[in-house]
Amino acid sequence: MSDPVTQSSAMPACAVPGADPAERRRRIRAAFDPELFRAAGRNVVEQLADHLSRVESSSAAVLNWRPPPENVAAARRLLEEHASDAAPSAAMLAERFAGVVATMLDRGHNLHDPRYIGHQVPASVPLAGLFDAVGSVTNQVMAIYEMGPWASAVETAMVEVLGEQIGWQPGRFAGFVTHGGSLANLTALLTARNVSLAGVWEQGVRGGDQLPPNASARRSPVLVAHAEAHYCIARSAGILGLGTGNVIRAALDERRRIDPNRLDETLARLRAENRPIVAVVACACATPVGAFDPLEDIADVCRRHDVWMHVDAAHGAAACLSDRYRHLVAGLDRADSLVWDAHKMLFVPALCAFVFYRDRERRFEAFRQDAPYLFDPSAPGLAEFDSGLKTVECTKRAAAFGLWGVWTLFGRQLFADMVDETFDLGRLLYEKLRSASDFEPLHEPQCNIVVFRHVPEALRDAPPERLGAFQLDLRRAVIESGEFYIVPTAVGGVGALRVSIINPLTTPDHFDALLAALREHGRRLVARR
Amino acid sequence: MSDPVTQSSAMPACAVPGADPAERRRRIRAAFDPELFRAAGRNVVEQLADHLSRVESSSAAVLNWRPPPENVAAARRLLEEHASDAAPSAAMLAERFAGVVATMLDRGHNLHDPRYIGHQVPASVPLAGLFDAVGSVTNQVMAIYEMGPWASAVETAMVEVLGEQIGWQPGRFAGFVTHGGSLANLTALLTARNVSLAGVWEQGVRGGDQLPPNASARRSPVLVAHAEAHYCIARSAGILGLGTGNVIRAALDERRRIDPNRLDETLARLRAENRPIVAVVACACATPVGAFDPLEDIADVCRRHDVWMHVDAAHGAAACLSDRYRHLVAGLDRADSLVWDAHKMLFVPALCAFVFYRDRERRFEAFRQDAPYLFDPSAPGLAEFDSGLKTVECTKRAAAFGLWGVWTLFGRQLFADMVDETFDLGRLLYEKLRSASDFEPLHEPQCNIVVFRHVPEALRDAPPERLGAFQLDLRRAVIESGEFYIVPTAVGGVGALRVSIINPLTTPDHFDALLAALREHGRRLVARR
Repeated sequence: MSDPVTQSSAMPACAVPGADPAERRRRIRAAFDPELFRAAGRNVVEQLADHLSRVESSSAAVLNWRPPPENVAAARRLLEEHASDAAPSAAMLAERFAGVVATMLDRGHNLHDPRYIGHQVPASVPLAGLFDAVGSVTNQVMAIYEMGPWASAVETAMVEVLGEQIGWQPGRFAGFVTHGGSLANLTALLTARNVSLAGVWEQGVRGGDQLPPNASARRSPVLVAHAEAHYCIARSAGILGLGTGNVIRAALDERRRIDPNRLDETLARLRAENRPIVAVVACACATPVGAFDPLEDIADVCRRHDVWMHVDAAHGAAACLSDRYRHLVAGLDRADSLVWDAHKMLFVPALCAFVFYRDRERRFEAFRQDAPYLFDPSAPGLAEFDSGLKTVECTKRAAAFGLWGVWTLFGRQLFADMVDETFDLGRLLYEKLRSASDFEPLHEPQCNIVVFRHVPEALRDAPPERLGAFQLDLRRAVIESGEFYIVPTAVGGVGALRVSIINPLTTPDHFDALLAALREHGRRLVARR
Repeated sequence: MSDPVTQSSAMPACAVPGADPAERRRRIRAAFDPELFRAAGRNVVEQLADHLSRVESSSAAVLNWRPPPENVAAARRLLEEHASDAAPSAAMLAERFAGVVATMLDRGHNLHDPRYIGHQVPASVPLAGLFDAVGSVTNQVMAIYEMGPWASAVETAMVEVLGEQIGWQPGRFAGFVTHGGSLANLTALLTARNVSLAGVWEQGVRGGDQLPPNASARRSPVLVAHAEAHYCIARSAGILGLGTGNVIRAALDERRRIDPNRLDETLARLRAENRPIVAVVACACATPVGAFDPLEDIADVCRRHDVWMHVDAAHGAAACLSDRYRHLVAGLDRADSLVWDAHKMLFVPALCAFVFYRDRERRFEAFRQDAPYLFDPSAPGLAEFDSGLKTVECTKRAAAFGLWGVWTLFGRQLFADMVDETFDLGRLLYEKLRSASDFEPLHEPQCNIVVFRHVPEALRDAPPERLGAFQLDLRRAVIESGEFYIVPTAVGGVGALRVSIINPLTTPDHFDALLAALREHGRRLVARR
């Protein structure tokens, strides 16, 4: 291994700075000094408050676009800049800290700008970030209860409250928080796999015991999923050793929801073929156009065929908090497992994804192991509160502080408000698009996801591939200008524009400005060809 | 699904508070008010600085122990307390915020107390939490570069710098950050599985193509791992469809490190048996007693048998930053993949785990998918910087801000200092235990992990099970008293005590106090029997 010292431009070649233990302890104490923390913290609060004020009033670019190599070089340069001074004073450090924070804010993405209507990542409630900061600064973690007693308690309380909102009875269900919807879906499907295929955890997917010894019957297990489920579902099949090729795409209706009758036929056929079915994966909603599957009907079909029903409700589960939109997730309480991302429609910072099991008895099915130095046999009753027995993560950050804190301050009503506001705005954008002759909405939205194309006069008769490429070029021009942040997609293989109204500060006026900006950039693009 | 309104004690039954859209928007704007953020932020900075000052000087309990149901009930009560006021003022909210934060701090675990010498979770550099807060408050995420251009740049720069510290040449290796060592090991082993078993991603572990059609040769693939590897390694085998039963435990030498000669024999036997070998998993270091495997020798063996070498260096990779301890990880640069948790020995808050591939060409082998609305064909060069192509997470929080920020302020030297300080203290604690007649160190430590037993006079001739149970009872008494935080483990099936000196503010005096506290609690326990 080469010598890092000679590789680092930060280290003067003539000295061995780590040699004196007293000096070493002095340097460490300086870095942990609470008064340095206080000075830096006072700076950063003012910087963040000023930044939020600027961003919420759209007085800067939405996305600060720079090509990746330029940003990487700048981030690397800062890493090496400390080289010049061996022992900076606390005042110098606080000043340097403020400078670094200013760079972070100048070069980031401004999700709190109401013109940010992009991916399913919200303009988060700012105070949620402060609750998270309490966890970060004090490094509260879980795995076992005692490492983060309050973090564990907060997560448990939040699981209870959200599970009851889904419609379950206290004490009958279980849940936990993990780092993101993909990991949440993976963990739930791991449980489904372990439940569906006897012996698979210990013996692997090749193991013989889960299937009849009759060779012709030994067929690969399948996962049946909404044909437009998030890519993490097929990835889960790849990760879990089932194979992405063994994901059966459930047929959709004209609104791109699972068709329960055809699902029934599919499951009947698979049963007749003796293929083990790990789970049916329904969506609430599916990502491309925000289509909510008919969960009650799907639950009936799954029950008929005795198949595990999983619902990826990462985006849409929050509808259960809304009087106006709860109907979209009717039947969610019948899922065997489901995923609910608080860092989507509960408007907290990433990552805070919930997994729920309807049947509390399933909570330890994903993993079946022990680590003697973790789970304490001298207090076995505590294991119930040890998150590490349920999650892929061993050490896990206190990911629910933001949600719990905001709920504590504002109650359930704020979350219902944000669902109502953004879902209503989805409908309103759709109406605006429909009434504009040069815009074409590509579906009737059920929530805050709206997919459309801009079709200027000049492209009215263009071939699909040209029209699709135009959408993507148009989007890139708009986002790099910093005027709006929207997302590319494809419908029927043809490029399109996609919007998630996931900043509750967005107003109808912003949609008028969006259409104007798209027209203006579109004109320039057409002229350039 | 039942009606959440009637279930929630927070909602007066007589009103439908969400009904008026103007009121709704007012409530949302109040929650997003930058001036509310400013007031709350000023409070929390003072609270955290005061808290750190108290905790670093040991003026409170280390762990605020309360039984789980008591904490859960308190966390739940706070969730429901907002009920009384429909529209709190900003001043009321800021005050309530401060009260909630005070509760979080009062009921948490104080890792910054130098008497915290517990799990491999550090007393983190406090400023790291503030850098993380910039990401949380503004909700900077990745998946695709443009969603978090600065977050992506920071992660890329940090991967470059750490990879060069491992000993690799710029541009030849690859890496990324993920949420925790378990997920990092899983992702690296997923890559190893996909590389080792042709067609497994698409066809699953049952798929026929990866093995000769000759039935007797179709044996289950295996993972060969350090016999005391972290539990997440066997879990990975379970998750990946290989089966926990197909993990072959590599034999250890007397210092609990992999014995390269016996590893050589094991691999030769497996090759002779025609069993596909997914990877060898070495540890730097293994969790139980902090044993560092002889990586150079293991690399030679792996090369001889053409097997993927993975190193779980979650804890120990940081040794490569230290002149004094770099020798422990000699050969780390020969690993095909490795895991390095910055939230362990780089002293940043959880979770920030790095995965590295020695060969840059492996970076996209874990997953092979696309999501049209994410990865933009109008700018294909950007995909190189899209983290979602490499990580289990799709949306991923800006997990490297804390590490990057601290390195930017203090340089590499601070990290080397913290490794040196805590590893030196491990040796010093061992010497103290060895020279005490009533303590028995159970190994000669290589780093900051020390395992031992307290053997008071009265138990000198006790049977092992009694002596082991005594260690666990003793530990529980000590941690519930709030005097120290240490960890239980087992050696040879018999309970023992385990310490990680992972707070660089701990001093030799604290070890004297620890031994005194163990003696005192031990006396009481013995008297009680």
